[in-house]
Amino acid sequence: MRAIFSDAYLLECMLRFELSLARALGKAGIAPPSAVTAVQNARAGQFNFEELAAQAKLAGNLAIPFVKALTSLAENVDREGAKFVHWGATSQDVQDTALVLQLRDALAQFDSDLSKLCDALARLAEKHATTYLAGRTWLQQGSPVTFGLKAAGWLSAIERHRARLAATAKRVEVLQFGGSVGTLAALGPLGPEVSRALADDLKLRVPDMPWHTQRDAIAEVGTNLGLLTGTLAKIARDVSLLMQTEVGEAFEPAEPGRGGSSIMPHKRNPVESAAILAAGLRVPGLVSTMLAAMVQEHERGLGGWHAEWETLPEICLLASGALRHTITMIAGLEIDKDRMRRNLELTHGLIFAEAVSAALAQHLGRAAAHELVEAASLRAIQKKQHLRAALLEDPQAARLLPAGKLDQLFRPENYVGSAGQFVEQVISRRGSKP
Amino acid sequence: MRAIFSDAYLLECMLRFELSLARALGKAGIAPPSAVTAVQNARAGQFNFEELAAQAKLAGNLAIPFVKALTSLAENVDREGAKFVHWGATSQDVQDTALVLQLRDALAQFDSDLSKLCDALARLAEKHATTYLAGRTWLQQGSPVTFGLKAAGWLSAIERHRARLAATAKRVEVLQFGGSVGTLAALGPLGPEVSRALADDLKLRVPDMPWHTQRDAIAEVGTNLGLLTGTLAKIARDVSLLMQTEVGEAFEPAEPGRGGSSIMPHKRNPVESAAILAAGLRVPGLVSTMLAAMVQEHERGLGGWHAEWETLPEICLLASGALRHTITMIAGLEIDKDRMRRNLELTHGLIFAEAVSAALAQHLGRAAAHELVEAASLRAIQKKQHLRAALLEDPQAARLLPAGKLDQLFRPENYVGSAGQFVEQVISRRGSKP
Amino acid sequence: MRAIFSDAYLLECMLRFELSLARALGKAGIAPPSAVTAVQNARAGQFNFEELAAQAKLAGNLAIPFVKALTSLAENVDREGAKFVHWGATSQDVQDTALVLQLRDALAQFDSDLSKLCDALARLAEKHATTYLAGRTWLQQGSPVTFGLKAAGWLSAIERHRARLAATAKRVEVLQFGGSVGTLAALGPLGPEVSRALADDLKLRVPDMPWHTQRDAIAEVGTNLGLLTGTLAKIARDVSLLMQTEVGEAFEPAEPGRGGSSIMPHKRNPVESAAILAAGLRVPGLVSTMLAAMVQEHERGLGGWHAEWETLPEICLLASGALRHTITMIAGLEIDKDRMRRNLELTHGLIFAEAVSAALAQHLGRAAAHELVEAASLRAIQKKQHLRAALLEDPQAARLLPAGKLDQLFRPENYVGSAGQFVEQVISRRGSKP
Amino acid sequence: MRAIFSDAYLLECMLRFELSLARALGKAGIAPPSAVTAVQNARAGQFNFEELAAQAKLAGNLAIPFVKALTSLAENVDREGAKFVHWGATSQDVQDTALVLQLRDALAQFDSDLSKLCDALARLAEKHATTYLAGRTWLQQGSPVTFGLKAAGWLSAIERHRARLAATAKRVEVLQFGGSVGTLAALGPLGPEVSRALADDLKLRVPDMPWHTQRDAIAEVGTNLGLLTGTLAKIARDVSLLMQTEVGEAFEPAEPGRGGSSIMPHKRNPVESAAILAAGLRVPGLVSTMLAAMVQEHERGLGGWHAEWETLPEICLLASGALRHTITMIAGLEIDKDRMRRNLELTHGLIFAEAVSAALAQHLGRAAAHELVEAASLRAIQKKQHLRAALLEDPQAARLLPAGKLDQLFRPENYVGSAGQFVEQVISRRGSKP
Repeated sequence: MRAIFSDAYLLECMLRFELSLARALGKAGIAPPSAVTAVQNARAGQFNFEELAAQAKLAGNLAIPFVKALTSLAENVDREGAKFVHWGATSQDVQDTALVLQLRDALAQFDSDLSKLCDALARLAEKHATTYLAGRTWLQQGSPVTFGLKAAGWLSAIERHRARLAATAKRVEVLQFGGSVGTLAALGPLGPEVSRALADDLKLRVPDMPWHTQRDAIAEVGTNLGLLTGTLAKIARDVSLLMQTEVGEAFEPAEPGRGGSSIMPHKRNPVESAAILAAGLRVPGLVSTMLAAMVQEHERGLGGWHAEWETLPEICLLASGALRHTITMIAGLEIDKDRMRRNLELTHGLIFAEAVSAALAQHLGRAAAHELVEAASLRAIQKKQHLRAALLEDPQAARLLPAGKLDQLFRPENYVGSAGQFVEQVISRRGSKP
Repeated sequence: MRAIFSDAYLLECMLRFELSLARALGKAGIAPPSAVTAVQNARAGQFNFEELAAQAKLAGNLAIPFVKALTSLAENVDREGAKFVHWGATSQDVQDTALVLQLRDALAQFDSDLSKLCDALARLAEKHATTYLAGRTWLQQGSPVTFGLKAAGWLSAIERHRARLAATAKRVEVLQFGGSVGTLAALGPLGPEVSRALADDLKLRVPDMPWHTQRDAIAEVGTNLGLLTGTLAKIARDVSLLMQTEVGEAFEPAEPGRGGSSIMPHKRNPVESAAILAAGLRVPGLVSTMLAAMVQEHERGLGGWHAEWETLPEICLLASGALRHTITMIAGLEIDKDRMRRNLELTHGLIFAEAVSAALAQHLGRAAAHELVEAASLRAIQKKQHLRAALLEDPQAARLLPAGKLDQLFRPENYVGSAGQFVEQVISRRGSKP
Repeated sequence: MRAIFSDAYLLECMLRFELSLARALGKAGIAPPSAVTAVQNARAGQFNFEELAAQAKLAGNLAIPFVKALTSLAENVDREGAKFVHWGATSQDVQDTALVLQLRDALAQFDSDLSKLCDALARLAEKHATTYLAGRTWLQQGSPVTFGLKAAGWLSAIERHRARLAATAKRVEVLQFGGSVGTLAALGPLGPEVSRALADDLKLRVPDMPWHTQRDAIAEVGTNLGLLTGTLAKIARDVSLLMQTEVGEAFEPAEPGRGGSSIMPHKRNPVESAAILAAGLRVPGLVSTMLAAMVQEHERGLGGWHAEWETLPEICLLASGALRHTITMIAGLEIDKDRMRRNLELTHGLIFAEAVSAALAQHLGRAAAHELVEAASLRAIQKKQHLRAALLEDPQAARLLPAGKLDQLFRPENYVGSAGQFVEQVISRRGSKP
Repeated sequence: MRAIFSDAYLLECMLRFELSLARALGKAGIAPPSAVTAVQNARAGQFNFEELAAQAKLAGNLAIPFVKALTSLAENVDREGAKFVHWGATSQDVQDTALVLQLRDALAQFDSDLSKLCDALARLAEKHATTYLAGRTWLQQGSPVTFGLKAAGWLSAIERHRARLAATAKRVEVLQFGGSVGTLAALGPLGPEVSRALADDLKLRVPDMPWHTQRDAIAEVGTNLGLLTGTLAKIARDVSLLMQTEVGEAFEPAEPGRGGSSIMPHKRNPVESAAILAAGLRVPGLVSTMLAAMVQEHERGLGGWHAEWETLPEICLLASGALRHTITMIAGLEIDKDRMRRNLELTHGLIFAEAVSAALAQHLGRAAAHELVEAASLRAIQKKQHLRAALLEDPQAARLLPAGKLDQLFRPENYVGSAGQFVEQVISRRGSKP
């Protein structure tokens, strides 16, 4: 992703636009064949990016000094052809189209990485379809779940992100070409013809009209990556909580040099989680910038477009970094089933209170059963006894739930309901939309 | 939209969930028919929302006191049936599903309003396909455009928002039903059967698994409304700039009591624009909250879910308000064609500098033509003459562009390129995706 | 805080402005005494807020219909005096000054609440100056700390927030009075005299000039409450993590009806923490809105001012709610010292690895000691033995740290360094700035 | 500012911390003099930042590989002294203190730049104390103001920002030194003594206790720069609006290569404004990240600290860039007084409607005068006549305001009220707080 949003690749994409434009102008009979000759050998390495950036500060954008420099290069090759460099285009045409080309590569990489993550998550979900651990709500142990269900939950969200980003790709992979105010006036009646040829050459869609100050598709890349990063941060939060010293149920993959402390020799820190969570904290603010920047004036705006330049690449880099960290983390995740089992016993049976309540409810109704078990739970806590014992002391409970039946209620495998079917559904329907 | 997100309607949606649940439990043979009888006559008006809200503060959510109150009501009707109120469900099941029902209504209203706005914009674009005005970039007059093109640009973005929100509706209109930790354990093996019946009754889709802490579809409503609001604010910025005293080309509809000043008797303020722009400033921050709130822990989170409760309705209200204001503004927009024409003459021909440059470029190449016209423009400014006169003083220009030809270059209708075709394309392809 | 930002109190503050203005105009000889008579008996209750709000939508702000309604009321009292209602003022003068009056009350309440929280935190820090628990970094047990130190850290931040908000109060408690464009032109040469009298009557400072579109002091209320909420959320995050089933070291105060679950009878949820964390998620986005809204055009802006109206009160309410929840939580916080002790033993001595490393470093240097203890820690984990045992197996360690000395290193009270002095310093320097 | 936040300078600041620490350990008798010798010749240039950054990704922060590399260097100089490198400190101690050293430099530069901007604004305000132009509210001409008043408004806000940032500097320029969990346990009883010596050597204040997870002062740098950027963007919005083709009252300084267009030869674009407005769009989102990142767990957090690393420098760079652009823009701002005068006449007298209304109000009361002038204004618009003429047609107005008096009302210099005194006050009270 860093390569895609590097200065060099940006220049390369800008060059691609100008070369394709020269070809399209030639096809339309506007420019001579030498217009292509003049620019086709220009390479990103021939430009001094630092210098262009300095000039851009004065000029207001990168395209102005870039076109100037490209024209110089072209003049050295073919003076006649060089006259047609950037013909009919405005600065934003080349910058926006270059961005679109970068985003096309970025979205392809996201799709490929998401596919890898989905595979890793599906493996995890399948493998741990019957690995039992405490379900936790409000950071408190509630009732048991399976680790497979947890992984399937992550997977289901990631699958939706793939579908969303695929739809975004369709909307955003589109040519920008409108000339100074979006009319292509400099091309006379040939604007649409040149547009079509230019788009074909770049393998982009032709829009119904230029979109210089209609930034919805560009901003949508930001919002959908924002949604993705939110899910990734949720996964990292879960893993880092499971990795706490006092929980110890799952661990990021270990590796020499990973997660050490400069002062505490025994530490193994969740470094992947930290990086993902940091992205989760940073992306929402950047997305709000993309939305705020949509308010671009008239035919081309003042400040809004400029605010996008570094913000969208930053979102792409953060989301992509978080995604890669998540793949590493999930692919190498270590699970401690024994600790999960032991943690299920931490509450001396209270984690099965709902299971007992559900069983009693069939006799007493939901509310009365809830009250009975709540009271028994309280007694168990006060007397430091197991919930099973506290229940047996209650005549009504003892009658309705004889010891054998009661024992069954305190087994996690007997109280995970449809977890198995849910996992199966998520895995088997992978790739179906929405 | 206020009605949809009112306390009363929220309660009504929660009641609908509980009634459909009672029916579904009946179908599955878990609850007796009296479970339906017990709750089917409960009405939102029977609940004291203030009191529920006060209890919710202690309980941690609205559903707990609501279920308690509903159970009381149900017990008065049928003590046996009342035992099955909320059976198998958790607080978040009823709250999330109620939210989904509200969002379904909200998205339907958005779609209908967007359709109205599109119609109004299409009329505007058609009517003004040959209404000429200054195209403006960086808040400076650039080259001429048509007002139809400006309206078509707005329209094209709004059409894309419709498509986006339609896709969102498919993803978000889905049942939430998982029980305490998402396993539906309290229903034993009947979870999926009850889910299916419940969803059918509510006309919602059944998800592959519960999504208590997978908030991507919920947050997506926020991000896509954020994108919409960005476009609406762009329209309002454009209109308010056109409405400036010094520009005076377009005006919000006038009405007694609208846009007055408490102290300046002559003022006619852009009050619709102000409201829309205010929404444009507020929604991005709220969207960032929705994204940040996605990091919800384990099976049910701590704080993140709570942060959504007021934020997403606020986004819906602001976006919907902005949309309604835009419809009013666009449907009654007054256009002053004369002022547009006069403003095209403000620069004494400079607005046609690019037109001249394009004409000369066919002889001199793009760069040389640009330089010649830049110099002529500078002279025109310094000598306070018309660009036409300055050009005639340049021997090269005078030779290449004889007076008759030059005159043609200073007419806006001769330099709007493909504007007409763009407008046509946007209008004729309405409704096609993406 | 809800009372301060209620519709009724807003109207009352607006009335106070108009009454003080009438008095000031009288003093300056502009208005007759009847101007005061005409408005002095007007009460908030006489206005229909719903109706005003509806008219405000058309008019663009609340002040316009308010002044109209007040003038009507005044005319019923004294037709001559009524002529001077709102004389020389613009809508924003009355709305901004009313907001300032509300903020003055709000900031006073914040100060008083912060003082209560500081007292509670200081008590907690003192009481637990020698209560030992695991220090945690990256959510992993590191080395021991005292609970007093944790509380002192919270306290030190809250003390700084008090200082910050006191400085903000000085900057924001200032009159807004400029007339339509900030010149007070309608008052001829008497502008400053009337300003002074008006400010005196309201006990506000007179600014050097009106600040209609200079919103820094208003936005600063938002940013500083944003900082405060950040600290409160940090406290809530800490408490909720300590309250996890698997940690169980601290608990929010218990109370009937607090923190229950609709389905899990044994649950005791951190409801205060959830509310505070939700505020911590919501306020940052609202603060970004306040900053974005600062870009207000010329003499009075379009949209920016409007965006503040609901945003700043919302920030005040959320911050204040979070503060009240924190006071409740801290004042009733339950500490389980035994569990803290037991958790210190969870790692079989690894939590003292740094203590051992520090002792060895005096002989071996920091890096070599770190390596030795890292290796011993690894062995201890692999062989499931106590770190003490693993160290005794290392000849070099055994030589340098004979058993008696080694034992001392595994006591938390011997490895909390300056924690006691830090707690003392924080408490003794309370109230000193910055 | 780029230099301050460069990789090289960050390393230099980290080295300064380690050297001062060696000295402080020596003073306290913990380390031998050779500890200083070992590190005092290390230079930033000796480190390979790329390599450190790569290792930091695994290690979780930059300090771990940095300390390792520094220890290697030190061992080459003095093996004994090298044993004491980083003694007692944790990674965050060196990174946070290095950040504080960078912020001290940054805040000094901000103060110096703000002083320059204030001087330039004061000059502008003085020079144009009687330069008249249209005051604009809601982007509509309201009543006249002076350009001096506009500049004084900007100045007053910038003065407050200086005061705010000075207070922030006091709070943030403070040592971070706590060891692994903030107790300085590795130093035994000598923690405070070493802290004091370390802080003295770095010329920083000693805090009451370490503040590893109390980020309020760090985040405050972000919020206060957010407020500053808001004001700068307001200035840029004003200037860019004045610079519109249709307004043309003020212009950014011209310079070859500045503000050109790649296609429109006549354009002179507000490039400074664009850069400032872009910063104004980007900083609010970044500030929200700083606030969200404050929620750092326990003794050292997970993700929150990491989220600050690039965000705060980015805020500093954007704010500083915007400030420099504003200085350039203001110092060279061109004012077109003639155009201002002409624009005052654009409304054919309507801009003086309030002046007339104020004059009539002395006879008729505020409301009746307002109505009369509103009606006359409407007639003037409909009949395309001057407001003066429309008023003379009204018998009541004609009687109360005879022609001579009426003429006086249509002169801007007669209706700018206290503008002159306001300008004077702002300038004369520069530097007084708050």
